[in-house]
Amino acid sequence: MVIVTKREATQEQVEAVVKRIEGVGLKAQVSTGEQHTVIGVIGDKTLLGDIPIDSMSGVERTMPITAPFKLASRQFREEPTVIAVNGTKIGGKQLAVMAGPCAVESAEQIVTIAQHVKKAGAQFIRGGAFKPRTGPYSFQGYGIDGLKMLMAAKEETGLGIVTEVMTPHEVELVGEYTDIFQLGTRNMTNFYLLREVGQAGKPVILKRGMASTIEEWLLAAEYILAEGNPDVILCERGIRTFETHTRNTLDLNAVPVIHELSHLPIVVDPSHGTGIRSLVSDMTKASVAAGADGLLLEVHHDPDHSMTGDGAQSLFPTQFETLMRELKPIAIAVGREI
Amino acid sequence: MVIVTKREATQEQVEAVVKRIEGVGLKAQVSTGEQHTVIGVIGDKTLLGDIPIDSMSGVERTMPITAPFKLASRQFREEPTVIAVNGTKIGGKQLAVMAGPCAVESAEQIVTIAQHVKKAGAQFIRGGAFKPRTGPYSFQGYGIDGLKMLMAAKEETGLGIVTEVMTPHEVELVGEYTDIFQLGTRNMTNFYLLREVGQAGKPVILKRGMASTIEEWLLAAEYILAEGNPDVILCERGIRTFETHTRNTLDLNAVPVIHELSHLPIVVDPSHGTGIRSLVSDMTKASVAAGADGLLLEVHHDPDHSMTGDGAQSLFPTQFETLMRELKPIAIAVGREI
Amino acid sequence: MVIVTKREATQEQVEAVVKRIEGVGLKAQVSTGEQHTVIGVIGDKTLLGDIPIDSMSGVERTMPITAPFKLASRQFREEPTVIAVNGTKIGGKQLAVMAGPCAVESAEQIVTIAQHVKKAGAQFIRGGAFKPRTGPYSFQGYGIDGLKMLMAAKEETGLGIVTEVMTPHEVELVGEYTDIFQLGTRNMTNFYLLREVGQAGKPVILKRGMASTIEEWLLAAEYILAEGNPDVILCERGIRTFETHTRNTLDLNAVPVIHELSHLPIVVDPSHGTGIRSLVSDMTKASVAAGADGLLLEVHHDPDHSMTGDGAQSLFPTQFETLMRELKPIAIAVGREI
Amino acid sequence: MVIVTKREATQEQVEAVVKRIEGVGLKAQVSTGEQHTVIGVIGDKTLLGDIPIDSMSGVERTMPITAPFKLASRQFREEPTVIAVNGTKIGGKQLAVMAGPCAVESAEQIVTIAQHVKKAGAQFIRGGAFKPRTGPYSFQGYGIDGLKMLMAAKEETGLGIVTEVMTPHEVELVGEYTDIFQLGTRNMTNFYLLREVGQAGKPVILKRGMASTIEEWLLAAEYILAEGNPDVILCERGIRTFETHTRNTLDLNAVPVIHELSHLPIVVDPSHGTGIRSLVSDMTKASVAAGADGLLLEVHHDPDHSMTGDGAQSLFPTQFETLMRELKPIAIAVGREI
Repeated sequence: MVIVTKREATQEQVEAVVKRIEGVGLKAQVSTGEQHTVIGVIGDKTLLGDIPIDSMSGVERTMPITAPFKLASRQFREEPTVIAVNGTKIGGKQLAVMAGPCAVESAEQIVTIAQHVKKAGAQFIRGGAFKPRTGPYSFQGYGIDGLKMLMAAKEETGLGIVTEVMTPHEVELVGEYTDIFQLGTRNMTNFYLLREVGQAGKPVILKRGMASTIEEWLLAAEYILAEGNPDVILCERGIRTFETHTRNTLDLNAVPVIHELSHLPIVVDPSHGTGIRSLVSDMTKASVAAGADGLLLEVHHDPDHSMTGDGAQSLFPTQFETLMRELKPIAIAVGREI
Repeated sequence: MVIVTKREATQEQVEAVVKRIEGVGLKAQVSTGEQHTVIGVIGDKTLLGDIPIDSMSGVERTMPITAPFKLASRQFREEPTVIAVNGTKIGGKQLAVMAGPCAVESAEQIVTIAQHVKKAGAQFIRGGAFKPRTGPYSFQGYGIDGLKMLMAAKEETGLGIVTEVMTPHEVELVGEYTDIFQLGTRNMTNFYLLREVGQAGKPVILKRGMASTIEEWLLAAEYILAEGNPDVILCERGIRTFETHTRNTLDLNAVPVIHELSHLPIVVDPSHGTGIRSLVSDMTKASVAAGADGLLLEVHHDPDHSMTGDGAQSLFPTQFETLMRELKPIAIAVGREI
Repeated sequence: MVIVTKREATQEQVEAVVKRIEGVGLKAQVSTGEQHTVIGVIGDKTLLGDIPIDSMSGVERTMPITAPFKLASRQFREEPTVIAVNGTKIGGKQLAVMAGPCAVESAEQIVTIAQHVKKAGAQFIRGGAFKPRTGPYSFQGYGIDGLKMLMAAKEETGLGIVTEVMTPHEVELVGEYTDIFQLGTRNMTNFYLLREVGQAGKPVILKRGMASTIEEWLLAAEYILAEGNPDVILCERGIRTFETHTRNTLDLNAVPVIHELSHLPIVVDPSHGTGIRSLVSDMTKASVAAGADGLLLEVHHDPDHSMTGDGAQSLFPTQFETLMRELKPIAIAVGREI
Repeated sequence: MVIVTKREATQEQVEAVVKRIEGVGLKAQVSTGEQHTVIGVIGDKTLLGDIPIDSMSGVERTMPITAPFKLASRQFREEPTVIAVNGTKIGGKQLAVMAGPCAVESAEQIVTIAQHVKKAGAQFIRGGAFKPRTGPYSFQGYGIDGLKMLMAAKEETGLGIVTEVMTPHEVELVGEYTDIFQLGTRNMTNFYLLREVGQAGKPVILKRGMASTIEEWLLAAEYILAEGNPDVILCERGIRTFETHTRNTLDLNAVPVIHELSHLPIVVDPSHGTGIRSLVSDMTKASVAAGADGLLLEVHHDPDHSMTGDGAQSLFPTQFETLMRELKPIAIAVGREI
């Protein structure tokens, strides 16, 4: 960490800062510039704990040199994390494909779609039983009944289950059914939920908050890792920007950035990342080419009768099948398989 | 609602949409333009329920004409909501001033600050006992002990308490101590929490999500109102933009916009809205001039020894006192009192 | 266009709007909803000219149904525009690759790099002679001398030239040397410059403004097209968002969106789109997979001695060579050649 | 400046950086941390000129300690710049009020509005003769005829003129009529234009780019100052964010920030900053309370017949008059006069 003091900072203020730093066993290196005094902190900055350097008199700002996350970082673990679940390895050579409807709407619907996506090569069926909705009057999911329908689809097809959990006290319930917990963009900073899934003993897909920086996202992962759960899968699903033509701006830069900063696998959700069916296939190809470890895709055989507006971004089963075929050479070109 | 169909939409597709609309008792008015067919929906659109017009074949997009929130809207209730709590009326002529530290750090700290802000004219002491923190290694608040310290400050000064609740299962606990629940920016879309405080029988300050539109914010309020709790106080606290000089971009446009769209009171938090102590006073004055119903301000007598970095945005007690004095003529100029 | 009137709009105000619309020969269709009256405008809305419907009394807002650009739209021209320049066709099956340094720094530098990129398969050498710089004290380019150095590189290698023009009165000068004008992100709304290159008789690369929506970008293209120059190549180069880890957020969604809305070719600049050398190759692959018609890439053999800080995002010649080889199977997978 | 090297940087790379720094007469202070080596640069960093530290091998990033602008900074000039023009002092105790229509539409229109705003207390009439428009088919202003109409309004009322200049070669022409050049948000990075008005000998209002940081804005001002023109007036007019309810997000934080960083006066444009007539008065009050040195406001007596859609954000003359009266006590409360 580098501490920049104010131009008008007094000698006493600089010394007070140095004293605080040295008081916890760190080394402080003071450089007196023409306008500002800069204090470099050398050593393990976690020793600083909650000392509010930013708030101290005479301090203008602090600038971090190293990342604030640890367990999630490449420095902590050099080789990529590979997560084995329901017979699939996520984060390895094989791309993980999770596909299905936005919401579980009936046993028939979810089984039908599961059969379609299984045939086309997906390893996981996704679908929401508990749905976070912007307004209170929208369909909020079938809850436990939805979970049972997902289980029926699993029994029918062998596909693993990916489904969302929205609140700490439902982690146990959802965990009885799902293979992978999904934490949605609106819950990336639901810290109690992060901690709870950190103790749940199953892999977690952590979607990026729609206004979260990559650093904040990795800090949210750190909450889960710090509870002892090493199986975190990040999911880029688009961020909020000024552009309104698409529902979100899919930030594919995040894929190689995460691979540089972290050992955790990252999957991409081009369905939410665009919000428009006709864009999904191209952006899925781009996701694979950028190095994604997997895909989260919405597929619906009858969007005209879906129960959420998200049908507008769902692929039809035939589109999904075609896409899976077209992805193959791209996957191979970047050293992957699908 | 207006439905725009695709240029290539067939007559059958248009008719299918019309049939759906009429099937629930609404009227559909079809206009055939040179490029697109546009279908106007006339009547109470809640009758559409979960029919996914957006997803139907041949539909390009839907455009709402009326707002998606109801209980929160001016149309639902013309006169402003005034919330009486601990002897203060929020939303009326008197500005509500809530001041205190970011976190409760000790009984001595919170009582000292409470005395300062009381003397200067605040009606509420604010301070976090449960703290949402970006990373797992930061100080997370003293929990129930913090609540007790707040109660001691209330007993000493008579000030009402404003403190944050982070998760549904702590609503009851926090409710035993606080006068007003605070829901933070990271929890604006924690829908279970919204519902829980909707049933808790105490006023709620709902901070705007840092990437939430005003419409989404009012929909979050709608969750609370729909549970039967009419006492929602909105709080603008800055949004996330590309500007990095300030911690957030305080969106004061939101103040008159909320007053147009809703009957709910709105307070402003210039401390988080700027993140920089030296900007807080000017932006507090601007908040009052824009028509805010109250203020949420960080005040700390000893930020050098605070336990969170937010001390950098806290006013010193003497600054707060001066500010309160300087706000008077501005409050009067806009028809308020302080 | 659909016009939504205010809830309190009077019958007279609605009629005044209708009269204006009908007065220019358009048809107005009035729908009276429960809260708002909605007026649909049927016919060629350009007939409205500068009638300020938005400003009229009783009008709440107008909502466009069709896009505001014409010559740039798919409706105007169904088949993709293919631009032949210096023996290369841009917008067809072959990917156009434009590579070179940020700035032309010496004849030796630009010839050396041109030879490298030519060998690896690029068809164009890029490099700035006139450089838009954020501050006045940075190197602003060698101007006409830089243009001459580019010409030397062209003579040596046969590569076409792509270079930036910054102001209307230099269009003629730059046009004597360059094969393709580049308009930078900071000049996308320099409307005089758009008009001037619209009359210059050479193809134009129009970079997206860093805070411009796709619609505004196509309207900027429309300025050029409206002057009679059909050869506009759009270039996605990253937009400005809250994320600071990368220099910009490369918005690859724009690639399939542009292909849907417009017949114009679109190339991608992953160098500026990321700002970080180690991310460029992955994002270039993603660009091709998303359907880009070409690439604009920074390549520098000696960034340690470059004259702008942009060397940090330049590929080394060997990296560029490897990348070009690795792009082949991806290009083929999406029906292209490189 | 602080230079952070990569974790894998070699001793040779660090030494090469140090050598470069010392080679221009600066001092380099090397701190070897546990993960990164950090090099502090002490001395006047302009000596670094165009040495691309960012691009050097082994360098991860550079972090500035001091601002990149000089002439615009508080350090360069402690006391506020006060600009005298047409008998008004901008930047002093008196608030400068510039009001008028978006575009000059006729001599009668501009004279009428000038009389209205003069009577209400404005010192300047504003109105566009050259209009930057998003699309080529919109009304682009009356050009020189518009300038003549402005002059007629000045002769009639004595008000100073504020009008926009869009391109370098029209600076001389516009300068024959206007008292203050206005540079619009779309031209903040039109560097040739900045330089040209830097030599034109008249004050310049420099509007903030809609996606420009405060630092970039001050760097744009630096271009003008560096040409010898000290009379730059900054204008906050709203930035582009994800919020769509308002046309822009008025960033009032910028007012106290500019006053901290710079000696230049700053005015606010709440008309563009909101885009909605009913919000303008409240946000004007907020602007004054935040410390603005002046106001740029749209006023139109007949928006139903205006020639641009901006009439929707124009105040009626009576609203403007009321606003001016209501601003008085707020101005006085913050030590100003109006």
